[in-house]
Amino acid sequence: MLFRDVYYLGEDFELRRGDIAVRGGVIEYAGERAPAGDWGETISHAERLVLPGFVNAHCHVPMTLLRGYGEGLPLDRWLAERVFPFEDRMTAEDVYWGSLVGIAEMLASGVTSFSDMYGFCGAICEAVKVSGIKANISRGLTSADGGALGESRGFYETEELFAEWDGACGGRIIAEASIHAEYTSHEGFVRELAAFAKARGAGIHIHLSETRKEHEECLARRGTTPTEYFEACGIFESRVTAAHCVHISDGDMNILARRGVCAAHCPTSNLKLGSGVAPVPRMLVSGVAVALGTDGASSNNNLNMAEEAHIASILHRGVNMDAALTPTAEILKMASLSGARAQGRSDTGAVKPGFKADLAVLKLDGRPHLGPLHDILGGAVFSAQAGDIEMTVADGEILYRNGEFLTFDIREALGGASAAAARIARELRGAQT
Amino acid sequence: MLFRDVYYLGEDFELRRGDIAVRGGVIEYAGERAPAGDWGETISHAERLVLPGFVNAHCHVPMTLLRGYGEGLPLDRWLAERVFPFEDRMTAEDVYWGSLVGIAEMLASGVTSFSDMYGFCGAICEAVKVSGIKANISRGLTSADGGALGESRGFYETEELFAEWDGACGGRIIAEASIHAEYTSHEGFVRELAAFAKARGAGIHIHLSETRKEHEECLARRGTTPTEYFEACGIFESRVTAAHCVHISDGDMNILARRGVCAAHCPTSNLKLGSGVAPVPRMLVSGVAVALGTDGASSNNNLNMAEEAHIASILHRGVNMDAALTPTAEILKMASLSGARAQGRSDTGAVKPGFKADLAVLKLDGRPHLGPLHDILGGAVFSAQAGDIEMTVADGEILYRNGEFLTFDIREALGGASAAAARIARELRGAQT
Repeated sequence: MLFRDVYYLGEDFELRRGDIAVRGGVIEYAGERAPAGDWGETISHAERLVLPGFVNAHCHVPMTLLRGYGEGLPLDRWLAERVFPFEDRMTAEDVYWGSLVGIAEMLASGVTSFSDMYGFCGAICEAVKVSGIKANISRGLTSADGGALGESRGFYETEELFAEWDGACGGRIIAEASIHAEYTSHEGFVRELAAFAKARGAGIHIHLSETRKEHEECLARRGTTPTEYFEACGIFESRVTAAHCVHISDGDMNILARRGVCAAHCPTSNLKLGSGVAPVPRMLVSGVAVALGTDGASSNNNLNMAEEAHIASILHRGVNMDAALTPTAEILKMASLSGARAQGRSDTGAVKPGFKADLAVLKLDGRPHLGPLHDILGGAVFSAQAGDIEMTVADGEILYRNGEFLTFDIREALGGASAAAARIARELRGAQT
Repeated sequence: MLFRDVYYLGEDFELRRGDIAVRGGVIEYAGERAPAGDWGETISHAERLVLPGFVNAHCHVPMTLLRGYGEGLPLDRWLAERVFPFEDRMTAEDVYWGSLVGIAEMLASGVTSFSDMYGFCGAICEAVKVSGIKANISRGLTSADGGALGESRGFYETEELFAEWDGACGGRIIAEASIHAEYTSHEGFVRELAAFAKARGAGIHIHLSETRKEHEECLARRGTTPTEYFEACGIFESRVTAAHCVHISDGDMNILARRGVCAAHCPTSNLKLGSGVAPVPRMLVSGVAVALGTDGASSNNNLNMAEEAHIASILHRGVNMDAALTPTAEILKMASLSGARAQGRSDTGAVKPGFKADLAVLKLDGRPHLGPLHDILGGAVFSAQAGDIEMTVADGEILYRNGEFLTFDIREALGGASAAAARIARELRGAQT
């Protein structure tokens, strides 16, 4: 595949113009003019911007089935009365369809990889396999009953996930460990999970200080912040993605920076749920790696990384009243390279020779919201919609192009997901009456 | 025109299902089943949501030509080094093309009316006329030289605007008076403009307390807030749209509420420029009318009211840490009826029999980000993209449908605007060297 004479985001995250040549799923050349050769299909268009594929650093992809379910309820009632009863009725097949629709939505906004925390991981992995996207998949563990790790059904499923899927599909799937959050598990359990991940060299996916309540109750209960607690439990001795980090302290930031923990910033979800605004500029100054995530469609309510990048780019300027914060290049890096690093993928996240061809192609012409455009990268962040993504490519394979999904039947996926969502909502209405 | 068995936003801003029948540009019926009759084209689709057309309550539509120009500079340097020199080189023809592209962008996001403040108002009105959209147009006045109103070129153009365009195109165009802002004019000038508007029964469009600097410098200079100053000058004796209102006090809110001033909330622009977050929940509780606006594409950087509604819906929940704020119905009302009222248009802004057929039709099916969807109105606000707008209708005339603009040649408009933007940027590069 050869992109000829296009705009692209250089590996320095500056705007470049020239050629990108791909062979065997890998970027072989990115520069002014690719060497002559048989590169296969040539995509030549003056008005295209090739970006590294977005990495959605925090998702619960099967929750696509819950999009808009329980809208308008306060968080505790929403969870107790709507989300948990709904999830109790989800089958592996439901999860498969919900995941496939969520993956479709991500592909349509230029996402080539995502990090997920949920259950029914086998069904999620099947959807990842079919679709061609990349994913780090984890079973979110809780220990409400206070038992040991080895006695937990979730840990059994974690071991199953590692055995069956870690490294599967040519490395597209990476299995991870997960602790759902500080407040949903006890210390012995967390320490055992930390030891498990460390022994396997596996990454860990957690929720961290998402709400003020969570952060302050931990301080009251343990005398430490959730970050300090996880540090003490040994969680940060592995590669960790910590979702949200809305209410972390300066001391917490120092721990996260020193340990190389990646904060997965989910601005839309944090805003919509009333959780607050993560201190992203302070995290960046403190040396904390920050990636971007959508969270689940149940709290966002979409999986649109183009929008997430836009909201991240303006939010911190506004709340800190400083228009110089979060420049375009930094936002694009958060949405791609930083996410790839959080996933432990050292071979993707930038348009760079030797990296995997994980790319999102943005159409710049023909639509009024991108014309005229004095700043191409600014246009990608501030003006573009997900609908401007013309093509999404992972490992050099075109997965999405001109609104079509090339690896699976989107009508079947939408039908399956809609039927599952409607069935469960109907069952729950029946159960209430 | 008959919409048969569709979802629609009822005049009470609740979700309804049924028929909407339009004749002579007016909604004749909205309810379960329209009476039999020859309604013309029937649009029958189970998966469509008919909304009142969005009203963009604050825009500078010709600034579409400056999209992304001077990105990354601090506000004062951006204005002095980029915006003002660029604007100095704009001709009426440039303004026409820039306006037409901006109008196209608005139509494509479901906007049927907008309120604008700029110069070259005749050229803007020509674009409004051609496109079929509705608009309240004003010449933003300043009095840097301290002269009387009658000596000002801007006021001459205001009078010209009223003489040539007020009520034109069957009432689609309404002329308004405008004072750019407190800090760009002197008191005698403002008082004269207030008297002019009052005598004519005209509306007034102003910027109000957009930045903290503007608000605090006014306090230091005059001992009053900008709101108190405009109140003392008699501005609020007319119908007023006050853009931004980011830094207003509780006392200011009382004045705005008592005077029926509409605050045009522009969240994206306020965030991107680092101006802050307007106290929208407090304004609403204080009884201030709040509409939504995009501001110009130079500071947004788009004119996407679907996105503006989304950002407004989540922003205040997040910064106030209260997920119960700005419910969906309130946001949809801000984006439509409140804007229409701010424009002095009492015959539009809701799907209501007797109102003008100013409508936006959202496509709900076939795309993964809207499926499954448990909450249709929530989907419109939280999940939809502008690209889901299938049809935009003003006065019963279809202006935009399935990506096509039916009243003008979008290629010609994009070509004209791109050529103008490129020419001016080139001239300015030449002038700098």
